[in-house]
Amino acid sequence: MLVVITYDVSTIDASGRKRLRKVSKLCQDYGIRVQNSVFECVVDSTQLKQLKLKLLETMNSNKDSLRVYRLGDNYKSKVEHFGVKESIDLEGPLIL
Amino acid sequence: MLVVITYDVSTIDASGRKRLRKVSKLCQDYGIRVQNSVFECVVDSTQLKQLKLKLLETMNSNKDSLRVYRLGDNYKSKVEHFGVKESIDLEGPLIL
Repeated sequence: MLVVITYDVSTIDASGRKRLRKVSKLCQDYGIRVQNSVFECVVDSTQLKQLKLKLLETMNSNKDSLRVYRLGDNYKSKVEHFGVKESIDLEGPLIL
Repeated sequence: MLVVITYDVSTIDASGRKRLRKVSKLCQDYGIRVQNSVFECVVDSTQLKQLKLKLLETMNSNKDSLRVYRLGDNYKSKVEHFGVKESIDLEGPLIL
């Protein structure tokens, strides 16, 4: 199924940026980063449980907001994109 | 149906912040802001068309990224939240 994960974190402080990097890495084990704080993962229910556990361990639940949307298996017609494509992966190596 | 709208815009410059404010206002005619750049709107198909038209007029398609996820009518079990609740409405009046 497609799962959309949105993660709101203050990136003003370094610890927030670090958590966003970790969340990004976790989500990118199962999918892609489509916006700065939006990830689309294709997972089965076991993987989703594992991913959620890891995300909950990573986030600061007093500061950050995490939302998980399950779009099911037939998701292709349910997603639309406008404008520029996904953000550059700010966490990845910069290859010039 | 529930529609999740995610809007990625650089808020470093004033024009980006202005567009985010406008997008927020448009989305809040139909729903709520659940994260800084994530909105949940409950709309029918006609309203969704109107909303998308307005969003496309507002966004800068060379700079911003807009994604629209349709979660259908039975959406309550498809959405999960963890951590702090939705961001303060930065665009609304500040009532002390």
